[in-house]
Amino acid sequence: MGAGTLTIDLDAIVANWAALDAIAGAGVETSAVIKANAYGLGVDVVAPKLAAAGVQTFFVATAEEGLRLRSFVGDADIFVFSGHMAGDTDMLTQAKLIPMLNAPEQVTRHFSAAQGHPFGIQLDTGMNRLGIEFGDWHALSSELMAAGPRLVISHLACADEPDHPMNERQLRTFHEMTDGIASRRSLAATGGTLLGSEYHFELVRPGIGLYGGLPFAEATPVVRLDIPVIQTRIVQPFETVGYGNTWEAQVESCIATISAGYADGLIRAMGENAKVYAGEIACPVVGRVSMDLITVDVSHLEAVPDTLCLIGPHQCIDDIAQAAGTIGYEILTSLGDRYHRRAT
Amino acid sequence: MGAGTLTIDLDAIVANWAALDAIAGAGVETSAVIKANAYGLGVDVVAPKLAAAGVQTFFVATAEEGLRLRSFVGDADIFVFSGHMAGDTDMLTQAKLIPMLNAPEQVTRHFSAAQGHPFGIQLDTGMNRLGIEFGDWHALSSELMAAGPRLVISHLACADEPDHPMNERQLRTFHEMTDGIASRRSLAATGGTLLGSEYHFELVRPGIGLYGGLPFAEATPVVRLDIPVIQTRIVQPFETVGYGNTWEAQVESCIATISAGYADGLIRAMGENAKVYAGEIACPVVGRVSMDLITVDVSHLEAVPDTLCLIGPHQCIDDIAQAAGTIGYEILTSLGDRYHRRAT
Repeated sequence: MGAGTLTIDLDAIVANWAALDAIAGAGVETSAVIKANAYGLGVDVVAPKLAAAGVQTFFVATAEEGLRLRSFVGDADIFVFSGHMAGDTDMLTQAKLIPMLNAPEQVTRHFSAAQGHPFGIQLDTGMNRLGIEFGDWHALSSELMAAGPRLVISHLACADEPDHPMNERQLRTFHEMTDGIASRRSLAATGGTLLGSEYHFELVRPGIGLYGGLPFAEATPVVRLDIPVIQTRIVQPFETVGYGNTWEAQVESCIATISAGYADGLIRAMGENAKVYAGEIACPVVGRVSMDLITVDVSHLEAVPDTLCLIGPHQCIDDIAQAAGTIGYEILTSLGDRYHRRAT
Repeated sequence: MGAGTLTIDLDAIVANWAALDAIAGAGVETSAVIKANAYGLGVDVVAPKLAAAGVQTFFVATAEEGLRLRSFVGDADIFVFSGHMAGDTDMLTQAKLIPMLNAPEQVTRHFSAAQGHPFGIQLDTGMNRLGIEFGDWHALSSELMAAGPRLVISHLACADEPDHPMNERQLRTFHEMTDGIASRRSLAATGGTLLGSEYHFELVRPGIGLYGGLPFAEATPVVRLDIPVIQTRIVQPFETVGYGNTWEAQVESCIATISAGYADGLIRAMGENAKVYAGEIACPVVGRVSMDLITVDVSHLEAVPDTLCLIGPHQCIDDIAQAAGTIGYEILTSLGDRYHRRAT
């Protein structure tokens, strides 16, 4: 039992979806973004649960992900953000995936290789990352709209910052590019869903909010991570702990070594900014995070429990993200393969 | 084909093992540390190759890893660094794993639950992370040595820094604790192997050096990572790229969007410190690394290739590590599941 236990609360994911669906309101479909193996939590457990809860539309990053997702969601719609890339055609047709065409070359490829196969369109409204540009759209829109896209979307670059002027600018551009077209439209991921109804159009597509992360501050937490203690030891003043001798005891201290490290996705950069919990009590990480092990100061505990909790009621994924200088999204997608995963 | 291609050169791993074995010299066994799924590269492909090349002893982090490894290495010795933890007994006996006992509680557990089953001993010589303490060893060594451990080891905290005084201090302590015992001994991982023959004892146990990383500067590179280009676009001066509008074009620029991101283990912190290669030509990452996508300035290329290379002949795992503010070890163990993995 050197492996930690990662507990994934599927009911919490459904509750988050329902809460975002309520915010989206009547007449707006709430889909689910389930790319990156459901943000690291396991598409095999998350997707069937969401499908059973009534989600009818899913989004993945690549055709490969869509192919894997198909067996878990019956005949739901699966849209592929990376669109129709070279080599994708067989996967798209076999698994009935809907590519979001992102560029003129993808339009050409799709219409020549998969004529009649459903497609969607992703437009660029200023993020300059993925999507058809204003000028290309002007040239292509008649042909594309005549073929009847299943959905026309764009993506916000700054939706996690509600007051950022980029949000209104992209909303305005999306209207300029799409007002009057005969297609359903979507602009909002989790952040956009929270910006207000003018961002919702006919479909919202939350990802991170389903999995309990910011910017959906009211989300129900989804993940809990408990890590076994391998051993404890007493260190004397001036003794050091871990690689590079970076931590030195100032007083006699009790150090617990727990069985997880950066190979389990516990980002090395968190280092001594992180803490773990024994019940209600925080215990600081000391020394460097190593590949399979983390050392923790447990001097103030009356008794050292069998496991210490890194993600749980007292510390969420965004707290860990702050310790590691990143965002909750990366904490989730980094969670590794060695844990005992329990979906409840 | 939204997925990148991760190419793992198994012959290079064998060459690195042979090179370290030559450094270890005659009379010293060179084992292989293959924990964390062979440092992220796949124990299913790496382990059989090393076993076929003559490696007779492997090290893993946990009993769960040992259980999985057993089917790939015949009857080779498999040592478990985390020792004999609660719940491990069945795995240890079933897969004939040898736990490195780390603490008096583990000694008690092993002798009561698996009497007669082989074991090793890990001693703490100052890293204060894993291993039996000086005082406990004094009390337990007669009993433990009478039972005939298969190996007695310790681990160096600062071996990546050859001039660090901690190395000699730990070597001295290891001698004090073990001189005269009737057991094979091991102190050196990759860094220790390079410190000189006085660190070798009867067995060295390289990990990172096998996989092409520092501190084994002469290692043959093992990994290559090629990422498909989804689309390119021209951006005008003052246009921004990516989340948070962090990058702004100063001149008209051509931006390529490639299909991999932090969900593929391309650590978000690398951001604009990173670059990718088109053949010989470096192309800087611009804007933030997102979950599935990275944006790159390719303005200076005559033609944009179908893929860009993140890890390859012009940029090794330690270069990427420097960009991300971490170490090559974490770059390897973070490599994700969405790549097409080709072991050659």
